[in-house]
Amino acid sequence: MPMAPEWLRDYRKETFVSDLLAGIIVTIMLIPQSLAYALLAGLPAEMGLYASILPLVAYALLGSSRTLSVGPVAVISLMTAMAVGDIAASGSPHYIEAAIVLAALSGVLLLLMGVLRLGFLANLLSHPVVSGFITASAVIIAVGQFRHLLGIPAQGDNLIALLASLFANIGATNWITLGIGLGATGFLIWSRRGLLRLLLRLGLPEQLSRILAKAGPVLVILVTVALSYLFQLGAHGVALVGEVPRGLPDLALPSFDAELWSQLLVSALLISIIGFVESVSVGKTLAAKRRQRIDPNRELVALGGANVASAFSGGFPVTGGFSRSVVNFDAGAQTPAASILAAMGIALAALFLTSLLFYLPKATLAATIVVAVSSLVDFGQIRRAWHYSRSDFIAIVTTIIATLTLGIELGVLAGILSSVLLHLYKTTRPHIAIVGAVAGTEHYRNVERHNVITHPNLVSLRIDESLYFANSSYLEDYIYRLVAESDQLEHVILQCTAVNEIDMSALETLEAIDHRLQEQGIRLHLSEVKGPVMDALQSVDFLRQLSGEVFLSHHQAVKALKRDEIEPYII
Amino acid sequence: MPMAPEWLRDYRKETFVSDLLAGIIVTIMLIPQSLAYALLAGLPAEMGLYASILPLVAYALLGSSRTLSVGPVAVISLMTAMAVGDIAASGSPHYIEAAIVLAALSGVLLLLMGVLRLGFLANLLSHPVVSGFITASAVIIAVGQFRHLLGIPAQGDNLIALLASLFANIGATNWITLGIGLGATGFLIWSRRGLLRLLLRLGLPEQLSRILAKAGPVLVILVTVALSYLFQLGAHGVALVGEVPRGLPDLALPSFDAELWSQLLVSALLISIIGFVESVSVGKTLAAKRRQRIDPNRELVALGGANVASAFSGGFPVTGGFSRSVVNFDAGAQTPAASILAAMGIALAALFLTSLLFYLPKATLAATIVVAVSSLVDFGQIRRAWHYSRSDFIAIVTTIIATLTLGIELGVLAGILSSVLLHLYKTTRPHIAIVGAVAGTEHYRNVERHNVITHPNLVSLRIDESLYFANSSYLEDYIYRLVAESDQLEHVILQCTAVNEIDMSALETLEAIDHRLQEQGIRLHLSEVKGPVMDALQSVDFLRQLSGEVFLSHHQAVKALKRDEIEPYII
Repeated sequence: MPMAPEWLRDYRKETFVSDLLAGIIVTIMLIPQSLAYALLAGLPAEMGLYASILPLVAYALLGSSRTLSVGPVAVISLMTAMAVGDIAASGSPHYIEAAIVLAALSGVLLLLMGVLRLGFLANLLSHPVVSGFITASAVIIAVGQFRHLLGIPAQGDNLIALLASLFANIGATNWITLGIGLGATGFLIWSRRGLLRLLLRLGLPEQLSRILAKAGPVLVILVTVALSYLFQLGAHGVALVGEVPRGLPDLALPSFDAELWSQLLVSALLISIIGFVESVSVGKTLAAKRRQRIDPNRELVALGGANVASAFSGGFPVTGGFSRSVVNFDAGAQTPAASILAAMGIALAALFLTSLLFYLPKATLAATIVVAVSSLVDFGQIRRAWHYSRSDFIAIVTTIIATLTLGIELGVLAGILSSVLLHLYKTTRPHIAIVGAVAGTEHYRNVERHNVITHPNLVSLRIDESLYFANSSYLEDYIYRLVAESDQLEHVILQCTAVNEIDMSALETLEAIDHRLQEQGIRLHLSEVKGPVMDALQSVDFLRQLSGEVFLSHHQAVKALKRDEIEPYII
Repeated sequence: MPMAPEWLRDYRKETFVSDLLAGIIVTIMLIPQSLAYALLAGLPAEMGLYASILPLVAYALLGSSRTLSVGPVAVISLMTAMAVGDIAASGSPHYIEAAIVLAALSGVLLLLMGVLRLGFLANLLSHPVVSGFITASAVIIAVGQFRHLLGIPAQGDNLIALLASLFANIGATNWITLGIGLGATGFLIWSRRGLLRLLLRLGLPEQLSRILAKAGPVLVILVTVALSYLFQLGAHGVALVGEVPRGLPDLALPSFDAELWSQLLVSALLISIIGFVESVSVGKTLAAKRRQRIDPNRELVALGGANVASAFSGGFPVTGGFSRSVVNFDAGAQTPAASILAAMGIALAALFLTSLLFYLPKATLAATIVVAVSSLVDFGQIRRAWHYSRSDFIAIVTTIIATLTLGIELGVLAGILSSVLLHLYKTTRPHIAIVGAVAGTEHYRNVERHNVITHPNLVSLRIDESLYFANSSYLEDYIYRLVAESDQLEHVILQCTAVNEIDMSALETLEAIDHRLQEQGIRLHLSEVKGPVMDALQSVDFLRQLSGEVFLSHHQAVKALKRDEIEPYII
C-alpha cells in the first residue's frame, strides 16, 4: 500500500494556488511541446499528449524532486525515432507498437536499476560527454526538422546522411510551407523575450503578462491553424497534422513480443541512462535553489514508473525535461501537485482540442522544435575544455564527431568509452615522487621541489594513487629503472600515505618486485600503510614473504635503514 | 635497413653451444606441441609446423626478450578455432584461409598498437581476469579434447554445449582410441617427473638425461605411431592424422577479402591483446631472473612481425608461450639464436619427418594437449581472491563463468568489463576524512582516529583521491549532507593534498557546490592544491568566482578562518 507522499500531508490552500498557476503555465507550454516531440519521434501527435498525462502523475507520486516536470523531451524523442526506425517503417502500426514497448522496457530497466541501487552508473557519463552529446543531438534534431520547414522528404541517422538527403530534395521545396516555418521560427525567437516586454508595455498586469508570454508557441499554433483553415493550405501541398483521435488514451498492456523486446534492449538501456542523467541534473539544479535534496535511486524508480505509465497509456519514452521544469519552478510550483494539475490540463486538451489540430501545419511544430533545441547547443564548452583539460577536450570532441557521423547511439557509447579509457590511461601512470627529509623535521617531500636530505643506500618513493591492475606495471617499470641506475642501493621504501587500496594485481606485482629486488640484494619496505590496506595485506601471505618491513612512519623507516658510515648529503 | 640486434654484435662460441643445446631441446618439445595446437585450432597438422618456423625467426630479430619462445599456444589456438569456426566449416579451404587471414590481421593490429604505443591497453586486463580466463579456457580445451580421446564427434562453443554433445555421443566410444588416449595421458603425466629420475637411476649422464626427459611427448608419438602401423589401427576406427604434405611452407600473401577481414576484426583484436598479455608476462618473468628488461611497445612490434610472418608462411596466430619459454630458459638459452636454431629444427622435421605422421593417432595429440593445459588450471586463485579482495573475487568468478557459459570471446570481454566497472564503482566513492589539528602541531588528521582540535564555524575535509567525473557527485552529496547537519558553519575547506587532478566534470561540480553553499551563507576554500592542479584552475574562471580563498597550507586556512569568540574544543 503506497504511503501518501510527504508533501501531501500538510498541503495548504496557499500552496494550491501557487501550484495551480504553475500547472496552467506548464499546460500551455506542454501542449505544443508534446505534439512537436511526437512528430520528432515519428509518432502520431496524440501520442505526445498521452505521454504527458499519466507519466506526470506517476512521477508526482514517486519522485524526490518537488518541481521536476516529466514528459517527452527532445533528445529522448530523437533516440526513440532512431531505435524504432531501425526495426519498423515510420508511422506503421508496428512502429507505434515498438515505441510503446520501448517506453515499457526502459521503464522496467529504470525500475530495476533503482531496486539494484545502480544510480552510480550515471556517474560514468562525464559532463563533457553529456554536453557534447546534447549539443550534437540538438544539431541533428534541428537539421532533421528542416525537412518539415522546407516541406521536402529527407532522412538519415546522422548529420551527413541528413544533409545529403536534404540537398538532394531541396528543389522540391514548398514555398508556402517555408513561409509558415520561417514566420513561426522568427516569432518564437522574438517571443522568448520580446513578448513579455510588449505585454507589459501594453499595460497588462505583470502576473497575466508572464502567463501570456509563455503562450507564444500556443499563439503560433492558433495563428497558423487559422491561416491553414482559411486558405485551405493542405490543398497547396502544405503538410498538416491531420486527423487526431479525440479523447483519453485507452489503458492497455504493451505487446510482449520477446523478439521485439530483445531488439530494443540496448536502445532502451541507453535511453534510460541518458534520460536519467538529464533528469537528475535538472532535478539537482532546482533542488539546490530551495535547499531540497534529490535521491538518485528514488529518481530511478520514479522515472521507471513514469515510463511504465507512459507505455500503459499509449505513450513513448519520457524523462524530466529542462525547459519545462524551469518554467514550472519559476511559475512558483511548490509541490508535485502542480504536475498533477498540468496532467489534468493536457487531459482536457486531449478531450476537447484535438479537432483544432487537423489544420495544424507540421512546419509550425518543426519551428517549435528548432527553437527549443537551439538553446541546447553549447559549443562554448569545447573552447572551455580546450583551455582547461586536454583529455576532457578529446572526450567532448570524440562524442560530438561520433554522434554527428555515426548516429546518436554509437555517439554516446563512443563518448562514454573515450572518457573511461582516457581516465584509465591517466591512472595507468600514477604520480610517484622520490622523497627526502626536510632538514630538522620528520617531514618527507619531493626531492625535485624541496631541499631535502637523502641517503645513498636507500630510496624513498611516495606513490600518489591507489595501486590497482591498470597502474601496477607502471610502478614495476619505474622501480626497475630506478634500481638499474643506482648501485649502492640496499633498500627501497614505499611511502603509502595516498594508497587507499592495493588490489590483487598490484599485490602480485609487489611480490614480483620484491623477488626481483631480493635477487639483486635489495630489500623492499612499506611505510605509513593505511588501516584497511594493512588488514587486507595481513589476510594473505605477502607480509611474511616480504624481504623488508612495514614501518608505522616513514621517518622511522629511514632512521632504521640508513647507513651511518655513509654521510648523508643534501641535494 | 634493419640493424643487427645487440645480442648478435658480440656473439661468442660458448654462447652458441648453450643456444644450440636449448634449440635442440625446444625443437623436441615444439614438434608434438605444434601438431597438437594445429589440431586444437581445427587445422591440418602441417600448419602447426609452419607456424613454428618463420615466426620464431621474426621474433628473434625484433623482440626485446632474449629467451621468449614464440609459436602456437593453447589459448590462442582455441580462440582461433572459435573465431574461424563461426564463418567456415572446420577443415574446409575457406577455414584454412580464414585462419591465415586471422594471423595476418592480428599481426597488423599488433604492429599498429606498437607504433601507436598502445601497450598500456594490456593494463586493462587485471591479473584475476587473465588467470580466470586462462583457467576457464584450459577447462574448455581439455574437455574439448575428450572427443579425440573417446573417438566420438562432439562440438560446442562453451562448456555446457560441449558436455551435452559429448554425453549425446558417448555410446559411440571407440575403445582402442580410449586405450591409446588414456595410456598416452598416463605416460605423459608420469614422465613429467618420473622419466628424469628413471634415466638418472639407469646411470645416464645428467645432461643427456635432462634432454631425454623432455622427449616424453616425442616418445609417446613414436610408440603410438608404431602401434598404429603394426596393428593397422586406422582400420579399427582409430582416427589418424593422415597425409601430411612434406616440405617447407610456400610463401604467399594472405587473401585480401575485405568482408573476411571485417568479419575477423574483433576476434583478431581479442587474440592480439590476450596473446600480448600472455607473452609479455612470460617475458617479464624470465627477464627478471637475469636482470634484463622487456620493452612492451617493442614486444608489440615483434609479436606483430611474428604473426605477419606466420600468415605469409601458411601458419596461424602465434604468441610467446609459457611452457616452452621456460624450457628454453632452463635449457640455458642465452640469446634469440636458440629460437632461430629451433626454427631450423622444425624446418628439418617438416622436410623429413612428415611421412611418420600418417599413422599418428589423434588421441595421442589430444593427450599432449590435455596434459599441457592441465598446468594452466589454477582454481587456487579464486580462494585467494575471496580472502584478499571481494571485488577481485567478483571479477575472477565473472570471467570464469562467462567464459565457460558464453564462450571465450564474450568471457574475456565480460572479465574486462567487470573489472573496469568494479574499479570505477570503487573510485565513485573516494575516501573523505573530516580532519582537525593534532594539539601543539600544524598537523591535520582524521577526527575519527585521532584526538584533534576542530572549530565549530568551519569544517576541514581531506579528499583522498583525484576528483573526476565518476566521483564528483559523491563529493557533492557528502558536502550537502554535512552542511545540512551543522548550523554554525561558515566555512568549508577542502584539503587537496591527494588531489592529483580535477577534471571538467569535477570543476563544474565544485562551482555548483560553491553556488549552493553561498546561498546558505557558507564559503568554500581550498588548501594545499598541487602545482599542476592550480595551473589548470587558473586557466579558467573558477578561482575568480570562488566565494572563498586558496591557502598554501591547511593550517594557514584554519588560522585565518576560525572564529576566536567561539572556544575551540577537543573531540
